[in-house]
Amino acid sequence: MAYEIYWISGSPYAWTVMLAMAVKGLDYESRLLDRTRDEHKAAGFLAINPRGLVPVLKNDDTVICEAAAILAYLDRKHPEPPLLGVTPEETGLIWQLVSEIDGYIRSPLRDGITAPIFRGKAKEGEGAEAVKAARGPAHEALGWVENRLAGGAFLAGETISAADITLLPVIQALARAAGKDTAACLDLEILPLGETYPGVAAWLTRIETLPGYDETYPPHWRE
Amino acid sequence: MAYEIYWISGSPYAWTVMLAMAVKGLDYESRLLDRTRDEHKAAGFLAINPRGLVPVLKNDDTVICEAAAILAYLDRKHPEPPLLGVTPEETGLIWQLVSEIDGYIRSPLRDGITAPIFRGKAKEGEGAEAVKAARGPAHEALGWVENRLAGGAFLAGETISAADITLLPVIQALARAAGKDTAACLDLEILPLGETYPGVAAWLTRIETLPGYDETYPPHWRE
Repeated sequence: MAYEIYWISGSPYAWTVMLAMAVKGLDYESRLLDRTRDEHKAAGFLAINPRGLVPVLKNDDTVICEAAAILAYLDRKHPEPPLLGVTPEETGLIWQLVSEIDGYIRSPLRDGITAPIFRGKAKEGEGAEAVKAARGPAHEALGWVENRLAGGAFLAGETISAADITLLPVIQALARAAGKDTAACLDLEILPLGETYPGVAAWLTRIETLPGYDETYPPHWRE
Repeated sequence: MAYEIYWISGSPYAWTVMLAMAVKGLDYESRLLDRTRDEHKAAGFLAINPRGLVPVLKNDDTVICEAAAILAYLDRKHPEPPLLGVTPEETGLIWQLVSEIDGYIRSPLRDGITAPIFRGKAKEGEGAEAVKAARGPAHEALGWVENRLAGGAFLAGETISAADITLLPVIQALARAAGKDTAACLDLEILPLGETYPGVAAWLTRIETLPGYDETYPPHWRE
């Protein structure tokens, strides 16, 4: 039976899994849940993942929740091309980068900048001040990424890995938020990425031109 | 050259890695950092991990930071006994459990209960009330663990995995905090574990009796 992927448009974790499917050239049936209708909290989906979270990968009797777990499953089941390394050293480095992205990069970018802008909480007053205060940690995080990319085309070297597809949705959401009209007076100094972080911008282009990338792009972002 | 492990007594992440070394029967040179002297923020250690965090595994030129990454490295370098599964389904389940522990179990137990008690902030007033308010989510997390263990001797089945050694330090710290004199008036209803969560208690004993367990126990807890 074909893989099924349960996802929500714009979920960074779901996007990561769909990028993994694209890189590995795997087909799947899309199970897009409508968040505005709370389909992820409906009984049918809670029977699959009691936490009501996406992504979920389903294949016959196998159900895997949590993006990192789905990557690990896919990489063992479909080893080529590898997303989690081949040698122990590669594997260790890639999981270290995934942990660092989840632990130290995601929050300063998403919680500090992206989420408040997307939620309309950064327009003025305290909300705007909070985002301005978050610029320092956000640039520190972006600087770390830029620095990593000085060593190769991708985060862990010359080939794409789980680290890149874990980070890509975080960076795309940040760039989208920074481009909103409501972000204009926040002095984010994030865009244009090609000037502020040329290594990150070139890396983004490398991933955006991968076969299958377009199908992973959040549909509601095109509206 | 032998492995070196940089660690801090009581760090749950470092404890997880030392348990992995014990399960796999691997020797290492202990590099215990004294947190009270800020040795993890000293130049010598920052040259190894610029984030100043433990655990770090070092072996010749290889340096791996972040507990999950060290587990992945060790499991690829020393596959027996496996801690991250053999089949894709096992690997997916174990990483899912690790993600769930990190994402939904660790915080309600540590941030909600353990940390405030260890830091002396739960003695009275608002601090005590905050811990009391955290009892519900903590018991929900413990219930999830108890429920998982109803299916086998360990979290992912009949053999120990990365999930068990990720959770063990969290549960041991919780039990230690709940046994403090200052916790007596918080009505935690966590101890004795054998009565409140018999599956968790039996699982703890299984791990505590593993060869090498005693050497992983936080030395400052014995003082």
